[in-house]
Amino acid sequence: MENYINIYKETRKKLKAYSYMMWLMSWDRETEAPKASLDFSSQQFEVIYADMYQMESDPKFVEAIEKLYENLNELEDKDFQVEIKNAYKELRMIKKVPKEEYLAYGLLTQKGSHIWAEAREKNDFELFRPTLEKIVEFNQKLVKYLETEELKGYDVLLDMYEEAFGVKEYDLFFNKVKEDLAPFVLEVTSKKERFSRKLTKGLFPVEGQKAFGKYLMEVFSYDQTKGVLKESAHPFTSGMSSVDTRITTHYHEDNLLSSIFSIIHEMGHAIYELQNDPKYDDTMLHGGTSLGIHESESRMYENMIGRSYAFWSVHYPKLVEIFPKQLKNVTLEEFYKFMNKAERSLIRIEADELTYSLHVLVRYELEKQLISGKLKVKDLPKRWNSLMSKYVGKRPKLDSQGVLQDIHWSGGAFGYFPTYALGSAYAAQIYQAMNKEINVEEIILNNDIKSINAWLKEHVHQFGKSKTPKEILQIATKEDFNPSYYIEYLKRKFS
Amino acid sequence: MENYINIYKETRKKLKAYSYMMWLMSWDRETEAPKASLDFSSQQFEVIYADMYQMESDPKFVEAIEKLYENLNELEDKDFQVEIKNAYKELRMIKKVPKEEYLAYGLLTQKGSHIWAEAREKNDFELFRPTLEKIVEFNQKLVKYLETEELKGYDVLLDMYEEAFGVKEYDLFFNKVKEDLAPFVLEVTSKKERFSRKLTKGLFPVEGQKAFGKYLMEVFSYDQTKGVLKESAHPFTSGMSSVDTRITTHYHEDNLLSSIFSIIHEMGHAIYELQNDPKYDDTMLHGGTSLGIHESESRMYENMIGRSYAFWSVHYPKLVEIFPKQLKNVTLEEFYKFMNKAERSLIRIEADELTYSLHVLVRYELEKQLISGKLKVKDLPKRWNSLMSKYVGKRPKLDSQGVLQDIHWSGGAFGYFPTYALGSAYAAQIYQAMNKEINVEEIILNNDIKSINAWLKEHVHQFGKSKTPKEILQIATKEDFNPSYYIEYLKRKFS
Repeated sequence: MENYINIYKETRKKLKAYSYMMWLMSWDRETEAPKASLDFSSQQFEVIYADMYQMESDPKFVEAIEKLYENLNELEDKDFQVEIKNAYKELRMIKKVPKEEYLAYGLLTQKGSHIWAEAREKNDFELFRPTLEKIVEFNQKLVKYLETEELKGYDVLLDMYEEAFGVKEYDLFFNKVKEDLAPFVLEVTSKKERFSRKLTKGLFPVEGQKAFGKYLMEVFSYDQTKGVLKESAHPFTSGMSSVDTRITTHYHEDNLLSSIFSIIHEMGHAIYELQNDPKYDDTMLHGGTSLGIHESESRMYENMIGRSYAFWSVHYPKLVEIFPKQLKNVTLEEFYKFMNKAERSLIRIEADELTYSLHVLVRYELEKQLISGKLKVKDLPKRWNSLMSKYVGKRPKLDSQGVLQDIHWSGGAFGYFPTYALGSAYAAQIYQAMNKEINVEEIILNNDIKSINAWLKEHVHQFGKSKTPKEILQIATKEDFNPSYYIEYLKRKFS
Repeated sequence: MENYINIYKETRKKLKAYSYMMWLMSWDRETEAPKASLDFSSQQFEVIYADMYQMESDPKFVEAIEKLYENLNELEDKDFQVEIKNAYKELRMIKKVPKEEYLAYGLLTQKGSHIWAEAREKNDFELFRPTLEKIVEFNQKLVKYLETEELKGYDVLLDMYEEAFGVKEYDLFFNKVKEDLAPFVLEVTSKKERFSRKLTKGLFPVEGQKAFGKYLMEVFSYDQTKGVLKESAHPFTSGMSSVDTRITTHYHEDNLLSSIFSIIHEMGHAIYELQNDPKYDDTMLHGGTSLGIHESESRMYENMIGRSYAFWSVHYPKLVEIFPKQLKNVTLEEFYKFMNKAERSLIRIEADELTYSLHVLVRYELEKQLISGKLKVKDLPKRWNSLMSKYVGKRPKLDSQGVLQDIHWSGGAFGYFPTYALGSAYAAQIYQAMNKEINVEEIILNNDIKSINAWLKEHVHQFGKSKTPKEILQIATKEDFNPSYYIEYLKRKFS
């Protein structure tokens, strides 16, 4: 056993270093690398990626994982048991997927995000279509390779992002959303609210938005010695350790709220990973336990804290100080209502809290059909538009505002989107539990968000991947997943 | 032979990819990585670095290089011959330096630049001293390991940066500088010129300096699809291919010229590498052939083009447009004289053209003494100050403005500084040859610097490392190195 542990830990050390390099390279490609260099950097990526696969599939490493898994209960360290369990699950990829296909797919998705970015910029789905077809095709094959008695079809992919959450569970959840929430949404969004032209037509220079972004990082105690805020086409969080977790945003001069709420959202993700116990940095247990839990943190920061009246009663004056002309005569009440307006919109990441889960529903249904083969990629833009029309009540005119708006599929992420809606539901449940122990509104009014960070660190963040989503929910809320909190929260807020 | 060629090329491909990752990591560490993450990233670097050493020292790879070198003339491709010759020379490091020492040194210098940066910031030489002592000690050992009949002592290090340029050659060069130039410098710098308070005490906001930097990148055709301009403690250029060569600067609000001339300087380096023939990207021949030639390009761009009257007669109006208040009533003539003022100063990178080689002379003499052991690191600050006093006529009061000002030693670069002065001399010689073929002043007046880039591409840049410095000088100037052009140029300009 000692020997197997050593083999595992030595390879783990290497894999961590190689992952770090690839992580840095992706970060660079998304935020800074000169355009003309992307092919050259892909070539280098290819070499490292192949070497990494070599390590992961080394028979000695595979044997070590298998032996350790067979004797899991003999391992004294509970965390190490979890790590071996996860590693054993990951072996599927090595053992069941042909090496060439696996490597080719890695490169495809690595290049994919740049092809997508160009297609989105040019509003040209055809530019992206061949790449997306290959990605979907690989995912269909992947499903076949990995299917078991318990996991079939799309479930194989869903399980990768949220353990034990498949079509059955998601259908139940989304049906509740459709039945309990959809009629309410329809009613709320049928009323048209009018806002000051200053808010709807104002221009907010990037420099001012950057200054407010900096201010927000202080308010949320996003530690700048461990983080970076940069720009990219699509906001994201990217971290490798409790001492380095970076975020991006995108500034639109005609949309002040976009950068504000994407920064708060990504800080929710980043603070989760920064507050992982540092002992996990050198293990495979650093990071979020699942995408659903990860998204619960970002949603809670963005919506439940960031869009609260208490929050802006403290911080609106700072925003007015930065944009005195643009916000002249715009009251706090009007600004608060504006950021919480519910309407039928096209862009998911700018959608309001109330309609958000319907945007996700569109993607969930499309993925089900794409993976099963019922829907072809070439027909995707049309189907996208018709589902948007059906669920959100609005049809995109441009693909850049429709099917091309999200980066996820270009990176091969199928089964990922549903966790966004799940995250909002988790968020409502965790928030309600936290609010029983500490007075969240008072904390926000005291501009003391580090106390919220501290509660979340203790009940959610510190554990990294060492607990399952189910275990986290039990620790934080003392009950299993219950979507009613989410529906109730939305109805209360938007009534 | 076929087999050896294949082994060599396969390993080369890997080494390129690993170098790329390490290059990116260094770039990130210097420009962006959160401070708290530096230890974590060093750990990862260590793993990759060890793997890279493994590849470089693999007996099969070593054998391939040795066999190819033995049969050099059988290789059809002349470029490939040069590459093998260089690789064979590099083998010294693998064969003569003990592995543990080599690896430990790599890590030491990788961390060194951050310790230096902190020491400089805090004006605390003691913080840096232990690191520098280890670095000097390693270089002394390195000299012993690599000494041959022809190369002894400090020459071993000098030869690494400029082939066949040792103490004998540098002494001849620096003696000429001392005899022909120094008295002239003394005379010129004894007169005190007075400049408008607007230039000497003005504050130039960073945003404006950034805008002018952007403008300069256009003027010099530094292609932004292949380059990046960012900030770091000390300006530098960092490139890996003809499609990705990045530069940095540092903005000082109280010193407008600092960012302007460091940007032009680094663009000289960057354009050299970007104009290498792209066929070298996948070989070991990409880059500058020597530091002296590299520096000749940056010096020519900075001083001979960037500090010319012709240049500012075209571009000064743009600068005034950006800083209308600060430059009100400052004439072009006064601004031109200000940027070309010769004075006894402390900071090398901000030193004027005339006194510059004396700053280098100080470092050259200190290195000679450090490597021979005549000077101890603990006595370095004192000796620095006294040599500055002797040659430049000014004594630093703070180590941050003295011995701590340069990054080079922290990265282990001994034998590097002298190439800076050599570069200025090369620049004068190449400029004079270029000016015989094209009318440089007219080109500058026509804001057509891409024509200068084109001439340099044809006569210097395209060759990468495939020609020696001597060969480049012959191609570009049709004669061997002749420092008289440099002395004459300076006397003409500063008379």
